Amino acid sequence: MFEFELLATSGRARAGLFHTPHGPLPTPVFAPVGTQATVKALTPAQLHELGATLVLSNTYHLYLRPGEALVRELGGLHGFMQWDGPMLTDSGGFQVFSLAKIRQVDDDGVTFRSHLDGSAHRFTPEKSIAIQEALGADIIMAFDECPPPLDRAYNEAALRRTHAWAERCQRAKARPDQALFGIVQGGVFPDLRAASARFLAGLDFPGYAIGGLAVGETKAQMHATLDEVEPLLPAGKPRYLMGVGSPEDLVNGVRRGVDIFDCVLPTRLARNGAALTRAGRLNLNNATFARDPGPVEAGCACYCCRHFTRAYLRHLVTAKEILGATLLTRHNVHMLLTLMREMRAAILAGTFAQYADAFLAGYTPVGAAEADEEA
Amino acid sequence: MFEFELLATSGRARAGLFHTPHGPLPTPVFAPVGTQATVKALTPAQLHELGATLVLSNTYHLYLRPGEALVRELGGLHGFMQWDGPMLTDSGGFQVFSLAKIRQVDDDGVTFRSHLDGSAHRFTPEKSIAIQEALGADIIMAFDECPPPLDRAYNEAALRRTHAWAERCQRAKARPDQALFGIVQGGVFPDLRAASARFLAGLDFPGYAIGGLAVGETKAQMHATLDEVEPLLPAGKPRYLMGVGSPEDLVNGVRRGVDIFDCVLPTRLARNGAALTRAGRLNLNNATFARDPGPVEAGCACYCCRHFTRAYLRHLVTAKEILGATLLTRHNVHMLLTLMREMRAAILAGTFAQYADAFLAGYTPVGAAEADEEA
Repeated sequence: MFEFELLATSGRARAGLFHTPHGPLPTPVFAPVGTQATVKALTPAQLHELGATLVLSNTYHLYLRPGEALVRELGGLHGFMQWDGPMLTDSGGFQVFSLAKIRQVDDDGVTFRSHLDGSAHRFTPEKSIAIQEALGADIIMAFDECPPPLDRAYNEAALRRTHAWAERCQRAKARPDQALFGIVQGGVFPDLRAASARFLAGLDFPGYAIGGLAVGETKAQMHATLDEVEPLLPAGKPRYLMGVGSPEDLVNGVRRGVDIFDCVLPTRLARNGAALTRAGRLNLNNATFARDPGPVEAGCACYCCRHFTRAYLRHLVTAKEILGATLLTRHNVHMLLTLMREMRAAILAGTFAQYADAFLAGYTPVGAAEADEEA
Repeated sequence: MFEFELLATSGRARAGLFHTPHGPLPTPVFAPVGTQATVKALTPAQLHELGATLVLSNTYHLYLRPGEALVRELGGLHGFMQWDGPMLTDSGGFQVFSLAKIRQVDDDGVTFRSHLDGSAHRFTPEKSIAIQEALGADIIMAFDECPPPLDRAYNEAALRRTHAWAERCQRAKARPDQALFGIVQGGVFPDLRAASARFLAGLDFPGYAIGGLAVGETKAQMHATLDEVEPLLPAGKPRYLMGVGSPEDLVNGVRRGVDIFDCVLPTRLARNGAALTRAGRLNLNNATFARDPGPVEAGCACYCCRHFTRAYLRHLVTAKEILGATLLTRHNVHMLLTLMREMRAAILAGTFAQYADAFLAGYTPVGAAEADEEA
């Protein structure tokens, strides 16, 4: 269980297979985000059709509503939302630091107020693990503190806590059918990142996440951080770049040895009327598409592109029809999952660098999504 | 084209086949409403899976946005929304009288302001037909005036105009691949309804609608009106009861010889978190369902009921997730279309009265929907 088979490398890019209780997970992989136990606008059957393999859900949101006890009672996340493939839950740390109100951090944990009703709550490493064990995902995350990436003093103090909390999460964890990943923090500071990677590698987690990126730093800083951290992580364990999912970040992340990604970008952009294409971002609110008889992306094999015109999509988006969100969500998730499959095939064929260069040459970056689906 | 085959009767209930350019339409039939060229929250593929055969769309809405010229340019409604089965458009009359602002009615037509942006517009019978010819549905409707059903003086004046407009619609209509239906009006007044049915029957339409019901009259008045009108309409033409679609109204309508129905009820209820079941209405906002591990309706074969619990549906509805709307829409449309198929089978078997009595015995009426999806 939780063995990571490294099948091939192409440069630093890796193709692998991560074995989970809900089946083997081919990597590199992008996980659509199901914040509230649903990938927004998609059914589990549609996720399967799109070739999704890993789905993420959010501990903070599910703890607040409907509550982890209810989810456990109804079969855990897999039974509750009827997703039978591998799942991952975050620790709730990021949401507490980005979404919740009036928080107090101490060495033991974090006190915060719900963004839903203002009620007071407290997360500790032990509490985060208990919630994640009730939710029952295959991959669970250590509870960490998420400071702004450019604040040196805060990152130093937070890192000390994050490391202590990682050890407490390891001790608290009881379910053998869940893999607990440690999270490397340290903002944009190479020495902090290196210290974090070395410390966590010593704890022998079955997988490692890189947190605190795509939240305000430059692309160059993101890449430098990945370059710093990646050689320090055990090659035989999967690496997960949290909250990252624009096409350019996926390509640049895989190029730097990342195996797992998640992001709300494809689903959120869709609900805002935008499509991800191989040329970049297409905003279907734009009047230039009003009479456009072509598909969102020529040659795309998704249901949306096989059937509907940009003009129809623009009408749906303008009229605020649910179908606009559902069709664009299907396209955007299809686009990212296809990109991941193509990158994996290129790694297995030993041609990743050429693939990545060709992809990026035809592409205008879309930028990062805000970090949380509910923010 | 547009031949109506009457295959069987059981009491006054009728099973038939109405031949359209997009295939034969088995009757009695319920048409889901696609106000803005989309049945809210459903794809055309899902409509096919649910067994939908006829889809309605709204002339008023599509005239305002995106405009009938654009729809025609993109292949008419069938091409635009990618529905390849029979379609019906209303005349826009009902929406002008229920949704639009500041209107003036004269013998030539109606001047109104858009509910979207307040812009001024004018519909005449000829304009309504021109729009409907651009939209290209198989069944189109005569432009009528829609007074409150209990106002005798207004109904008398309106009926005179509605009859004159029906004749003008007949003269204006040019496309041979569209069937124009006349609309019987007259409120709850038997003599006006009888006069209207006789007048329109004399114009030899390929089908007849009964308008102005389910807008404020009692169920007894609705049934009395159907009882008055039905014997006066030609038996060899389909009868369409406009805007009616609660399960009890469908059963009572079929019992009184109605062949075609449409209503926003199943789709609107779904978006409000309510399910239609054989026992009546189920409000999934209700806290009693928070831990309910059963399906929305035991024994139901729809995707929602085969996979998801009431507890999960309640979570989705409470969290305002799109998936709640899409799953409940699929259930509700499945429920009404299954009811229609069962009624048709009972008519063909000669057992309609028993079927209707048994259905209504186990059922608590849900009441009528407000008349328009966008109201």
